[in-house]
Amino acid sequence: MEILESEIIRAELSAATLHASLGDVSMTSMTLLNEVAGRYPDAISFAAGRPYEGFYDVKLLHEYLRIFCHHLRTERGMSEAQVARTLFQYGDTKGIIADLVARALAADEGIEADPASVVVTVGCQEAMFLVLRALRADDRDALLAPSPTYVGLTGAALLADLPVLPVRTDADGIDLADLVTGLRTARAAGRRVRACYVTPDFANPMGVSMSLADRHRLLELAACEDLLLLEDNAYGLLNSAAERPATLKALDRHERVVYLGSFAKTGMPGARVGYVVAGQRVTGPGGGSLLADELSKIKSMLTVNTAPIAQAIVGGKLLAHGCGLADANRRETEVYHRNLRQVLDGLDRRLGGYPDVSWNVPTGGFFIVLTVPFTVDDDLLAHAARRHGVLFTPMHHFYGSTAGHRQLRLSISTLTPDRIEEGLDRLAALVEEGRAEHEGTGEHIPSGAR
Amino acid sequence: MEILESEIIRAELSAATLHASLGDVSMTSMTLLNEVAGRYPDAISFAAGRPYEGFYDVKLLHEYLRIFCHHLRTERGMSEAQVARTLFQYGDTKGIIADLVARALAADEGIEADPASVVVTVGCQEAMFLVLRALRADDRDALLAPSPTYVGLTGAALLADLPVLPVRTDADGIDLADLVTGLRTARAAGRRVRACYVTPDFANPMGVSMSLADRHRLLELAACEDLLLLEDNAYGLLNSAAERPATLKALDRHERVVYLGSFAKTGMPGARVGYVVAGQRVTGPGGGSLLADELSKIKSMLTVNTAPIAQAIVGGKLLAHGCGLADANRRETEVYHRNLRQVLDGLDRRLGGYPDVSWNVPTGGFFIVLTVPFTVDDDLLAHAARRHGVLFTPMHHFYGSTAGHRQLRLSISTLTPDRIEEGLDRLAALVEEGRAEHEGTGEHIPSGAR
Repeated sequence: MEILESEIIRAELSAATLHASLGDVSMTSMTLLNEVAGRYPDAISFAAGRPYEGFYDVKLLHEYLRIFCHHLRTERGMSEAQVARTLFQYGDTKGIIADLVARALAADEGIEADPASVVVTVGCQEAMFLVLRALRADDRDALLAPSPTYVGLTGAALLADLPVLPVRTDADGIDLADLVTGLRTARAAGRRVRACYVTPDFANPMGVSMSLADRHRLLELAACEDLLLLEDNAYGLLNSAAERPATLKALDRHERVVYLGSFAKTGMPGARVGYVVAGQRVTGPGGGSLLADELSKIKSMLTVNTAPIAQAIVGGKLLAHGCGLADANRRETEVYHRNLRQVLDGLDRRLGGYPDVSWNVPTGGFFIVLTVPFTVDDDLLAHAARRHGVLFTPMHHFYGSTAGHRQLRLSISTLTPDRIEEGLDRLAALVEEGRAEHEGTGEHIPSGAR
Repeated sequence: MEILESEIIRAELSAATLHASLGDVSMTSMTLLNEVAGRYPDAISFAAGRPYEGFYDVKLLHEYLRIFCHHLRTERGMSEAQVARTLFQYGDTKGIIADLVARALAADEGIEADPASVVVTVGCQEAMFLVLRALRADDRDALLAPSPTYVGLTGAALLADLPVLPVRTDADGIDLADLVTGLRTARAAGRRVRACYVTPDFANPMGVSMSLADRHRLLELAACEDLLLLEDNAYGLLNSAAERPATLKALDRHERVVYLGSFAKTGMPGARVGYVVAGQRVTGPGGGSLLADELSKIKSMLTVNTAPIAQAIVGGKLLAHGCGLADANRRETEVYHRNLRQVLDGLDRRLGGYPDVSWNVPTGGFFIVLTVPFTVDDDLLAHAARRHGVLFTPMHHFYGSTAGHRQLRLSISTLTPDRIEEGLDRLAALVEEGRAEHEGTGEHIPSGAR
């Protein structure tokens, strides 16, 4: 072997040689927004889509762990050594609480899921990537998704090199006519549309929901057009209405739905436990399995398995509440409902008189979208944080910066009543400033003013 | 919207339309091996590369959690609400124990790592995928890796659509001359070689280690050839020798090494906590960051963050041992050393007389490779499990089935002394049977005999 003793090259990597996702504006959105939030820790945040923190208590973690271990001993008949091994050792790739997840789906959503079709994942985010990675075979493949959409979906699709074709969304949720048009246009252009991503309940970022009739129509459409639906149900359980509408999965009679589940909002985000239900048959050479089994193979090379310790804590919480999380989240659901009403009422009182300012009126979930007559960009966010002490999310982040330039998303989930009132006062001051400057100049607040 | 009420199509997916990784033999290896192991639970397993389970105790989980919470209160000055929020809520994408990881690297490996260059991951497997996803920009890109190699590396590369170019490995570890040849040949063919994956200590599956001189030579070569090294150090700490050789990362003066760390073998697999140290600068438009920051962006769209609960438990274990895991693993290291000696001695006593049977003699780690004169395929494994009650891993799985057809990997990590003796008796019976049939027919044991 000959190595020349020439000049040493210190490792540097050109950004241009890295995966294309890293150059995409969607991948940096969250980082940028977190940076602004980090610089202004005292600002009142309508930005964070995090669940309410008021009931968190470390003692619960110990309790859930004890409950799950008791379950392993009594219901699964494990010895002490087996219990310890289950928590400490590598576990089954599909998870150790698939049966409890299936029980919770039955209790909370009326979904009958074979535990064999469940893969427990590192949050719903991993579930999303697993499905998109599996469904992306070549350059023809594409995914339909509402626009605006959850940035995590956009990011996972970028990581899987899967283009996302936007479908119009309005106050009633995804526009089914536009979906059919988009699907047929894409197919006519030689695209293989692998699935349509959809959040029927309180979709991030608009907070809108689909009617029961539209859910039936979407399923019928999927069956007729041979389309797979990826149903994301992160918020559906947190509905204060007397009757929650059925999920697509509960209504699905033809295995058209791959269900993406999350315990982040209803269990706890810090466990990072989600799941996917994928009972679709895979056929052909190398087939003869369920889609869940294929996802499990991918997972084995991505994260091996979801931390059994984290699964144990979520499993303990499920068991503590009879494997149903609707009742377990009654207090949180009331908080979200109260906050949503308070923010909507507060917007009415403060901004109701302006004909050029409007917002949608979701019936649940975490989000409201406010439309203003001036530009809402990241500079305005920084200005709002610095001068007004209030944070929100510019909507363009959910459109890949192609639209939403006069909209902002308000999240209601983490705030207390007094912070909401103070935050809305600050927000109203920003809106009034923006309107005044907009009327004066016909333009948005100039950078110099910030 | 018009939907034809035509025939309903039940969702089925053709395997041919799924991502190519799912058709690769490497992706199904682990599933197949686990299935065999699952069918014969009473077989003595030299197959599982899992850490020793004798010291697992659920009480430790509660203790580690308490220690970490105490650390948050006292060293980070958190209130009870902040402690709860840190464990329950979404956390920083790069992790909440990067500082403790950096302290452990300093204490255990003499590695000075800026916590800002650390990303805490869902096991080492996610770290691997993050790096390979970041480094794969287009079809020209490729990775160098020893052959045979860890199946998790092969799998992660398949998921990232990154071809792996094999480099010869012998009893001294990766062959540096072959590495240079492979690198130059690939570059001459228009390939962009992004990195070379290497495990200097007790590499899976051969159990071989690199000399200190070779480590220096590899670093020099990397600097001269402008090559990045991905150092996997899952086993280095579990070395019973008086002095452990320095890792590549500890010797690296030019940021040539991306370090892939695992707490699976030294902390606990069930936490699924690993990490990557990537202090390389990223330059150019969109650059100006550390590679760790780019990996963090990818992670935010893959798993969001590593479960804070799992990080807390690993953090608690680190804190319980002064942020050094070498001492914390003294008992385990003695078990591995004792088991390795016992298996090597036992092979000598049982098979030492056969000139056509040989094995390598690693000085540490979990693995030994046995070479026999007959074919070692998955049918032989099933036969061994059924007839002889013993499990191992056919080596072809580590060669993508292109080589290793007369070799098997023995793992020594989970067994007790009496199980080792009994297991070696069974293995010897299989080898004697295989030799007899091989001599008789010039072929391996025919399927009919099984």
